[in-house]
Amino acid sequence: MSDTFDLIVVGGGPGGYVAALRASQLGMNVALVESTHMGGVCLNWGCIPTKALLRSSEIHHMLHELGNFGFSAENVGFDLSKIVGRSRSIARRMGGGIAHLLKKAKVTTFDGRAKLAGRAGEAHKVSISKDGAEIATILAPHVILATGARGRQLPGLETDGKLIWGAREAMTPTELPKRLLVIGSGAIGIEFASFYRNMGSEVTIAEVADRILIAEDPEISAMARKSFEKQGMKIITGAKVGPLNKSENEVSTTIESAAGSIELTVDRVICAVGIVGNVEDLGLENTSVKVDRTHIVVDGFCRTAEPGLYAIGDVAGAPWLAHKASHEAVICVEKIAGRSPHQLHPLNIPGCTYSRPQIASVGMSEEKALAAGHKIKVGRFPFIANGKAVAMGETDGMVKTVFDASTGELLGAHMIGAEVTEMIQGYVIARTSELTEAELIETVFPHPTISETMHESTLAAFDGALHI
Amino acid sequence: MSDTFDLIVVGGGPGGYVAALRASQLGMNVALVESTHMGGVCLNWGCIPTKALLRSSEIHHMLHELGNFGFSAENVGFDLSKIVGRSRSIARRMGGGIAHLLKKAKVTTFDGRAKLAGRAGEAHKVSISKDGAEIATILAPHVILATGARGRQLPGLETDGKLIWGAREAMTPTELPKRLLVIGSGAIGIEFASFYRNMGSEVTIAEVADRILIAEDPEISAMARKSFEKQGMKIITGAKVGPLNKSENEVSTTIESAAGSIELTVDRVICAVGIVGNVEDLGLENTSVKVDRTHIVVDGFCRTAEPGLYAIGDVAGAPWLAHKASHEAVICVEKIAGRSPHQLHPLNIPGCTYSRPQIASVGMSEEKALAAGHKIKVGRFPFIANGKAVAMGETDGMVKTVFDASTGELLGAHMIGAEVTEMIQGYVIARTSELTEAELIETVFPHPTISETMHESTLAAFDGALHI
Repeated sequence: MSDTFDLIVVGGGPGGYVAALRASQLGMNVALVESTHMGGVCLNWGCIPTKALLRSSEIHHMLHELGNFGFSAENVGFDLSKIVGRSRSIARRMGGGIAHLLKKAKVTTFDGRAKLAGRAGEAHKVSISKDGAEIATILAPHVILATGARGRQLPGLETDGKLIWGAREAMTPTELPKRLLVIGSGAIGIEFASFYRNMGSEVTIAEVADRILIAEDPEISAMARKSFEKQGMKIITGAKVGPLNKSENEVSTTIESAAGSIELTVDRVICAVGIVGNVEDLGLENTSVKVDRTHIVVDGFCRTAEPGLYAIGDVAGAPWLAHKASHEAVICVEKIAGRSPHQLHPLNIPGCTYSRPQIASVGMSEEKALAAGHKIKVGRFPFIANGKAVAMGETDGMVKTVFDASTGELLGAHMIGAEVTEMIQGYVIARTSELTEAELIETVFPHPTISETMHESTLAAFDGALHI
Repeated sequence: MSDTFDLIVVGGGPGGYVAALRASQLGMNVALVESTHMGGVCLNWGCIPTKALLRSSEIHHMLHELGNFGFSAENVGFDLSKIVGRSRSIARRMGGGIAHLLKKAKVTTFDGRAKLAGRAGEAHKVSISKDGAEIATILAPHVILATGARGRQLPGLETDGKLIWGAREAMTPTELPKRLLVIGSGAIGIEFASFYRNMGSEVTIAEVADRILIAEDPEISAMARKSFEKQGMKIITGAKVGPLNKSENEVSTTIESAAGSIELTVDRVICAVGIVGNVEDLGLENTSVKVDRTHIVVDGFCRTAEPGLYAIGDVAGAPWLAHKASHEAVICVEKIAGRSPHQLHPLNIPGCTYSRPQIASVGMSEEKALAAGHKIKVGRFPFIANGKAVAMGETDGMVKTVFDASTGELLGAHMIGAEVTEMIQGYVIARTSELTEAELIETVFPHPTISETMHESTLAAFDGALHI
């Protein structure tokens, strides 16, 4: 095996493995170094296994709504080990798929940790170690760092693998916590809260900000909160969580907020209080790479300050989303290959939360559009006025669209409700192609679909919706 | 009440009521005449109640798959009257919603049958009768005919309301037929076949053409057939159905096809062998309106040959789809109001079938694109290689995209699988805005979603998909 490559990719997540595959498609001889599991956090401990769990929890919810649809069943039960086992098995299966794709693409993979080890002429040297011992040194003129990120550990809230859970423990419970405290209400915290609530746990969410899902439009946050509270979650915003007092099998704490101070005892705590990039032990100190807090500073084509060195995905900063990493991978590799890719526009990257109800958005919230100086037109349409949503029994949802009043540009779209994670792409296509209300109004959305609410919300911002 | 209006709309379905609402938004004084039920067939005996039934049948299917997701239940059962009752109640609720919208829009509604009764100067006279007696004559310079369509009755296959069902009887069963023959495999036939099969009936489909779902791309037809057969349906194409021999509570017939001749005895037969427009008794004989077979001939703005007389929706011809009717309504009314709407492009109207798996498409099939003289690039991507589909347990599906090889224009998109009816709008937006592969490739489809297959299918047609 040659030890010289056209490209070395460090990290096998949705940034790294996509970079390797795309580079292979473009004719490069590629090495991929992954220390833990091919597919990264996304595939092994993130997006994919949580979606499998959430699917199960939706079924559990449905089993308690059977009467509404004309069905009955007795002795409804579940085997948590089977639910978790299914999730793990899907992660393994998808991980195997990635390994297969890399092999088919003739990417040389290394099982170990990579560290930049200086230069040999124009080439970067990368040393690879396994269990503390160096196993190889490889060279390439281009190195892409795609080392990802991990959950932030806050003093006093450190995960301990038993009572205080991070995402990994929260994904592999051996028994259902009767009482659960989720600290943090970003997408990850909310998805776990939704899973455990749907499975029957008593769930409290503590969020330091003044609303949950701070990345979303405030109106969507408010509607999500209302839905979750209707489902029986307790939500405390502006929350200051006191010291976590652990006993053998439970945790007590005090949560202060504008609503006063409450004492809370729970069986488990899930901490989901942010993300930090994996910038350590990469040998960056011998390069001119700039690190801002915990992410590597890059330009619009993912280039660091060091020639031939690139960073993509979570380690290159927010938004911490797999699809952002994959698109950066393609852009970065195509630029290396001498193609002319477009830079990624942050406002064209959708965000999804797979709770019940689901949440999806792209572009600017109403308040951000106003803050950016736009004169705007805003449309809204509720699922309750949509025939398919009523037929599905999924009336808890809405679409909100924000347009520039003078140009008609779609500035942002914000959705909450069933299947919105699958629908948002229509608006992403629209934003990417700089479409206006005119094209969206002219589009024939099929009937009966929930996606008709996307049309009506556009109409509502201009001439007026038809069905409300 | 004045008997003179700016616009008279005949028919209160998704063409007619939308025309009335849009005209009201534009300041017109509108009358709407409906003989039977506000909302038309779509809302009362079509799209909406069938979607409610199909939702129930999906739940039934899920209840038999519980073990796969870690759940168990005993004595699973259903009450057909509750399932049908839910469907009827949703139809009533949505119908009430339309009546409310019309009232809010100050549309004057007439409960009766409308007939053109000549002119009074520039105005058309419309006489309205109820139970054979004339109850009013109203006038307007513009009359929109939106009288819809009904199921075709073929000699020997006439619905009898007991053993031989049309859509209406099929939607309101009092007991589940153990053995069912569905004649015709368009969207309506396939949806009923899917509902009854999922509920437990033995289903045979007889289709005269050489494949089911003849409106779809042949590859999608073939994949649908395979799925349905895997679910236990018996499908006979190139089928010639012999005389239906009825006894007290069952029907026997002989079905001939290339595979030979089979004798079949079933409990019920559903006939779904096409659609004919409601062109009778409208007083067309005193106008210069042209009728071609069973539809009224119109131009791109829904104008008939008679000045001031328009036709929209099913009565104006294929495709017989509610969303086509509603868009024609808006185009027709805006043209009357002196606006400059664009004509509806037939290749930008999506079609959906809500079976399990679902089917959705827009634009040209591969064979039609070739027949139209395009040099094409075709991409495909299967759900089995998509993480979200695997996590959902919904791996039975694929996307196929057809692009013009020289311009990159998206000529057609064809989808089969879970949630494709909600996803197809992204491609419809793309077609409506004449987007190419470049914009679709640049679009960041969120991960993990099934909609990523839309991206991969586009990549597959050009540089190559990433995940297969």
